[in-house]
Amino acid sequence: MDDGITLEELQLAARNHGLPLESVRDPITPAGLHYLLIHFDIPAVDPRSWRLQVGGLVERPLELSLEDLRTRSARTLPVTLECAGNGRVLMPPRSLSQPWLTEAVGTAAWTGTPLAPLLAEAGLGEAALEVVFTGLDRGIQGGVEHDYERSLALDDAMRDEVLLAYAMNGEPLPVQHGFPLRLIVPGWYGMTHVKWLRAITVVSEPFTGWQQEHAYRIHRSEDEPGVPVTRMLPRSLFAPPGIPDFFDRSRVVAAGPCMLEGRAWSGFGPIVRVEVSDDGGETWADAELEDDAPEFAWRGWTFEWNATPGEHELLCRATDAAGNGQPASVEWNLGGYCNNEPQRARVLVS
Amino acid sequence: MDDGITLEELQLAARNHGLPLESVRDPITPAGLHYLLIHFDIPAVDPRSWRLQVGGLVERPLELSLEDLRTRSARTLPVTLECAGNGRVLMPPRSLSQPWLTEAVGTAAWTGTPLAPLLAEAGLGEAALEVVFTGLDRGIQGGVEHDYERSLALDDAMRDEVLLAYAMNGEPLPVQHGFPLRLIVPGWYGMTHVKWLRAITVVSEPFTGWQQEHAYRIHRSEDEPGVPVTRMLPRSLFAPPGIPDFFDRSRVVAAGPCMLEGRAWSGFGPIVRVEVSDDGGETWADAELEDDAPEFAWRGWTFEWNATPGEHELLCRATDAAGNGQPASVEWNLGGYCNNEPQRARVLVS
Repeated sequence: MDDGITLEELQLAARNHGLPLESVRDPITPAGLHYLLIHFDIPAVDPRSWRLQVGGLVERPLELSLEDLRTRSARTLPVTLECAGNGRVLMPPRSLSQPWLTEAVGTAAWTGTPLAPLLAEAGLGEAALEVVFTGLDRGIQGGVEHDYERSLALDDAMRDEVLLAYAMNGEPLPVQHGFPLRLIVPGWYGMTHVKWLRAITVVSEPFTGWQQEHAYRIHRSEDEPGVPVTRMLPRSLFAPPGIPDFFDRSRVVAAGPCMLEGRAWSGFGPIVRVEVSDDGGETWADAELEDDAPEFAWRGWTFEWNATPGEHELLCRATDAAGNGQPASVEWNLGGYCNNEPQRARVLVS
Repeated sequence: MDDGITLEELQLAARNHGLPLESVRDPITPAGLHYLLIHFDIPAVDPRSWRLQVGGLVERPLELSLEDLRTRSARTLPVTLECAGNGRVLMPPRSLSQPWLTEAVGTAAWTGTPLAPLLAEAGLGEAALEVVFTGLDRGIQGGVEHDYERSLALDDAMRDEVLLAYAMNGEPLPVQHGFPLRLIVPGWYGMTHVKWLRAITVVSEPFTGWQQEHAYRIHRSEDEPGVPVTRMLPRSLFAPPGIPDFFDRSRVVAAGPCMLEGRAWSGFGPIVRVEVSDDGGETWADAELEDDAPEFAWRGWTFEWNATPGEHELLCRATDAAGNGQPASVEWNLGGYCNNEPQRARVLVS
């Protein structure tokens, strides 16, 4: 972090929140602890009058009620969601936005109906190129008034695992997580999973809405077109051991064996390795991976740490099956996206 | 706010969160939107082995399971809870702690068993002076390692409305709100409502634990004993109208009639008046109060604002039946407590 956080950033941090790090012990995050980023306001929706419009380049436009969606074939997937801006504050000079540290993540069991059969039912036009997802939330960002909207290339939208979700952890979506319906695109950063869905529109040209063209791009200046943010880079988090100091969150741990518990995830494939350092990243040792993780959810790991008296800085880092890891230092970008440098925790062993 | 927020304050703001202001429209706050302040870590509790110990100066110490508590007489009360540090950041020079702006509040329906009959059953000793409530959460604050503990004078503890709550909005307590059991003391600031209760101890001397003696006192220096923080001062919040700017949260509203909605509360009696200003506090007009509010919950109000083109600063302020109001400027104190200055929102009408 460089300069102190501004009033505007604090306003966002007071509304939104991360996962309390001790909760990374839970394979499924309770709804109230799951990270949350709301760009504009939470819309008030009457589920009786709400409808999903499926239109654009389709042969048979659809208008679906929540009941219509609930009676279609359903699938439940545990999915890890992470904000693309996770780690933003730790990437100076800082992009002024939601000031995330490392905990903008959560894993819930999302239940919904697969998108692909619904698009097939509507009948895709031959010129179909992308699918645009529009939320009911509206506001101003970068000086432009707009509904929150994002698109996916047709191939990405048609993947089996893409859901229109109406339940989270077995309950109707909480209002702050998109009631009555949100998009779930397993493996992708959080901006993709459009909340409070009102319309799905098939288009023949690349979508150029503000949240697609201006936000969520990796570049070093506004002049560079940059590369869009898509799938989650690997990251691992652990529950800081021992007990915390209220204010600075440093930890006190008793000397002796100390079981560290954490979870790791990647949008590019299964996690195949997690390593832990207790000396600020000088040396690393392998953690033990839990056997099976669902395809799109984080994978648990443990590390039996021999806590020796003195001050330690604990870190962890993950590697996925595609060979992606967590570098000690990530190259800066303007929006503060995709900073997957390792988590650090200061621990005093006594 | 004076200087920029520090990394330590941001760490707290990332874990904890306030009520998104648009949610003040709901009379009952969903659990995931209710403000949250966790001093240490959320403890992991196995409800099967968990027991509540009732001891100290009692004739018959009790050990109660969650099932024991659930089979006792039950009462459900809608109760507004507000953090004593709400508004801290707006009271410079700033106390370094959880950096609240104005939204550290929520109203839930809490279900539990009344405390007084339980203490009567245990049999209060003649020398009983205070009742100490101990949580399972442990950590370090002000350099002192301690369990989170607070006491109440016997008369306050024996009031009819004091509950040992095991449900919030009809569901078992969420872990972050104190599962399996928390204290609810209607009308009092949030630090009173001890979460993750493990022990209730009747004592004959004033309790001097850290959270009682050092924290939550109104004073101008550590040398002054000061006055303990107890009941909530009146405050009112409104849902900012129109649509927001993502980053600075300023609002854009269409010219014409605009219904403002808000809620107001006080720990000293019913709300009898709410006023609104659209010129930064120069002039005020009365809002319309909703008919009936439950005794310990916030009271709804509306104000039909005639939004005229230009920039406005909206404020609201409440008065309770005891004559307490919201001053334009609150006298500074070291801990940044009890700052009930009016909420302000910048609005551009076009």
